[in-house]
Amino acid sequence: MLAGRLGSVVVILEAVHRRHNVSAIMRSCECFGVHEVHLITDGFKPSKGAARGSERWLEIHRYTETAPAIQAVKDRGFRVYIADLMEGAFSPDTVPMDEPIAILMGAELTGVSDEARALADGAICVPMHGLTESLNVSVAAACILQRVTERRRLERGGGDLPSETQDQFFEQWYEWEVELRQGMIARSREER
Amino acid sequence: MLAGRLGSVVVILEAVHRRHNVSAIMRSCECFGVHEVHLITDGFKPSKGAARGSERWLEIHRYTETAPAIQAVKDRGFRVYIADLMEGAFSPDTVPMDEPIAILMGAELTGVSDEARALADGAICVPMHGLTESLNVSVAAACILQRVTERRRLERGGGDLPSETQDQFFEQWYEWEVELRQGMIARSREER
Repeated sequence: MLAGRLGSVVVILEAVHRRHNVSAIMRSCECFGVHEVHLITDGFKPSKGAARGSERWLEIHRYTETAPAIQAVKDRGFRVYIADLMEGAFSPDTVPMDEPIAILMGAELTGVSDEARALADGAICVPMHGLTESLNVSVAAACILQRVTERRRLERGGGDLPSETQDQFFEQWYEWEVELRQGMIARSREER
Repeated sequence: MLAGRLGSVVVILEAVHRRHNVSAIMRSCECFGVHEVHLITDGFKPSKGAARGSERWLEIHRYTETAPAIQAVKDRGFRVYIADLMEGAFSPDTVPMDEPIAILMGAELTGVSDEARALADGAICVPMHGLTESLNVSVAAACILQRVTERRRLERGGGDLPSETQDQFFEQWYEWEVELRQGMIARSREER
């Protein structure tokens, strides 16, 4: 599992505030091997436990504003693409993958902020064939991530999480497993 | 839009009961040009208006039990694939597309029923690279539909909705547009 994990694809959630959407996006990140999620909370507090345990396996960075979040990933060499239907938006198949990539998802009703739009390197959208032309934010995130992570893995022949992060992650997982097993043993003793 | 609409890919929802999931799946169907959704309600009532208007553009069939729903699409020549992580499950890239295809999504916590499992022609799942190994049901549906509808469109050179269904659909859309415009005109008169 660790060998397929990606450090070079990250997700930024800008004021996505419905609990089930944040939850579903974190689960998708974990399932597609995306290791980092950047939450711009903009005053709201995402509920704890919203991601059904998947947040345990994610590195979560929190910001209260958009610009510092984008700057932080740009400083590390990431290109930032907003999820948006604007003209000139790339599809998940055509978005340039020569650099590490950050996908920024905007709020449910209002979409990506003007600030994010101005700071981004480009836009990405899922090709659609309907009248409503709007996917749920967690669905759009997953459709983008599925392709982008697959392309990155094909290109790199697997994951690219730095080995020190893999080690940390493994320790974290191991401790959790041990605690879980100890808990189970303790409970089964109590039951006897 | 009508030229890209698909009649040969349908979705069956078996007791998917969270309103936001049913909503998101219907929106995805509409966005990916899937024309038919089959709801097995199994006693529960999906809330009206859950799909943010996208259900207006979908043909919705309702059943109270699983077997008649599966039989109905099989009688029309569809192969039924359950969304399930079972061994031997196809990926959305490898699932056979030589026949019309129905994708059956199971309930949020319990998954696909044994009955559906026994009646299906096979299983389909989204390749994953994480520890949690479970996508939200609406996310899984969208990831499957994105690929399957794209493959079908590539293979057919576009959509394949029968022309009489396209005509019906166009009339329905046209009537809705006229009503909408009349409503807007009436409201703007009232406001003056």
